Amino acid sequence: MSLIVTGTVALDNVKTPCGMKKDMLGGSAAHFSMSARLFTKVHLAAVVGKDFPNKHLQFLRRQKVDISSLIAEEGKTFRWEGEYKKEDLNTALTLETELGVIGCKPRIFEEQKNIPNVFLANIDPDIQMDLLKLMKKPRLVGLDSMNLWIAHKKPSLLKLMKKVDLFVVNDGEARALSGEDNLVKAAKKLHQLGPKLVVVKKGEHGVLFHSNKLTFSFAAYPVEKVVDPTGAGDTFAGGLMGYLSKARKLDAATLKKAVLYGTTTASFNVQGFGMAKTAPLTISDVNKRMKELVEFIKP
Amino acid sequence: MSLIVTGTVALDNVKTPCGMKKDMLGGSAAHFSMSARLFTKVHLAAVVGKDFPNKHLQFLRRQKVDISSLIAEEGKTFRWEGEYKKEDLNTALTLETELGVIGCKPRIFEEQKNIPNVFLANIDPDIQMDLLKLMKKPRLVGLDSMNLWIAHKKPSLLKLMKKVDLFVVNDGEARALSGEDNLVKAAKKLHQLGPKLVVVKKGEHGVLFHSNKLTFSFAAYPVEKVVDPTGAGDTFAGGLMGYLSKARKLDAATLKKAVLYGTTTASFNVQGFGMAKTAPLTISDVNKRMKELVEFIKP
Repeated sequence: MSLIVTGTVALDNVKTPCGMKKDMLGGSAAHFSMSARLFTKVHLAAVVGKDFPNKHLQFLRRQKVDISSLIAEEGKTFRWEGEYKKEDLNTALTLETELGVIGCKPRIFEEQKNIPNVFLANIDPDIQMDLLKLMKKPRLVGLDSMNLWIAHKKPSLLKLMKKVDLFVVNDGEARALSGEDNLVKAAKKLHQLGPKLVVVKKGEHGVLFHSNKLTFSFAAYPVEKVVDPTGAGDTFAGGLMGYLSKARKLDAATLKKAVLYGTTTASFNVQGFGMAKTAPLTISDVNKRMKELVEFIKP
Repeated sequence: MSLIVTGTVALDNVKTPCGMKKDMLGGSAAHFSMSARLFTKVHLAAVVGKDFPNKHLQFLRRQKVDISSLIAEEGKTFRWEGEYKKEDLNTALTLETELGVIGCKPRIFEEQKNIPNVFLANIDPDIQMDLLKLMKKPRLVGLDSMNLWIAHKKPSLLKLMKKVDLFVVNDGEARALSGEDNLVKAAKKLHQLGPKLVVVKKGEHGVLFHSNKLTFSFAAYPVEKVVDPTGAGDTFAGGLMGYLSKARKLDAATLKKAVLYGTTTASFNVQGFGMAKTAPLTISDVNKRMKELVEFIKP
């Protein structure tokens, strides 16, 4: 079943111990699409500026992402400039942001309102809510956010959390939003805020899943050389949500497999700048690495 | 097969967000013994001061630990005073140490020199080497250390690493000793320094194992309330080494099970001050929780 995602589509300048790249295609919805496309048809609903390079549009089309609702508004595309230091590749240091058209509401076609699976990738929670309100009868709604919105738009985020099924959050955000230092407790508290499925991403340390019936934790795939972690969380969410959209079930085996797909696709993402390693991926590449991951973590 | 351990036997004052306890039995070799005793006969070779409380000796005897080589020298028992802050229960802040008799060489009985399994729990690497030299034909030798010795006695530690089979190390120490920020790379570098089995403990994030033939990573058992992490790493090593001493094999299934036993026994340790939760443990308590752990981490 098809999947619609809103979030940012951005131009990224990224510096890591491996080098520096400018004007890369980035943003939460774009990174999400790169892994979700491996499992199902992905519709990308987002706003860019008139300056958005045509080559990035062509790239997204070649990746079979539906960009009919990727709208170019008057103004500039959202830009993010960040750096990762050698000592802590898990943490992005934001050097500069240029918001541009980021505050514009997403608009979608009438037939897209019936898409059954919805992912609200990281962007202002009010914009996430705008998209959600357009959807007629979503089967599965997923949500990601970030520290900025937890700090500045908590009421909007909490309202949204009551309306979603799946909440994907990193460890620092889980602690900040729940007020709990212990991650197991934090996941339970987030669950109580609405979403029946909570996934806490711990970067190189893997992932913790919590629902009413099922709690589990997997280590991450062992990547020896992290080149650029930008978009790893979005890629994770794309693998997870993409597989859940395809599987049409939410039993324990499906949920575990979805988290493994998220973990595996994210491991490719960090091995190259931007989408260098996720763009060429096929499902068979992912399945091959996922087998290695299962060997690596099975007790 | 029986197991001998050297290391510290200490008196601990510990402050955590859950409270403060004074004059607890502590030290690397004592915590190690608490979990190792569940699997095999444990001989504790260490030095305390004349002030060492009789009640702690009686306690160790009741736990069936052989303390015939726990020697009381003239002087004071090693004391450690530490604190854990709410925000980072993984990191002990040392408030005070009183070295006392800690520099004295361990002495063991002639028949103990034939014990096949040896664990060198955290203490000055020269003292660890002193014990190892006494052993006649060890089958399996394990080693733990700490930042202090990596910083101040690196040559002694590196010499010792060439003589051991198993090296147990926490993530920060693995990074410091290998010079690698990436833990997968760090584990490989430590392996090249001598030990054929390398286990990197990551606290709440679980464990990474690396050998020539086998690499794996498990999440930790989900403990919601950490009371006192002191000795968690030693308890882990005791569960791991205790099981390996009992199993007499080093195949993949045995190594995975040994790491699961380490993880499980450590999870009990952190739930109480000192040895409050590990002292009453039976192997059936441990097996029960280990089943839960396997459910929690299996893909």
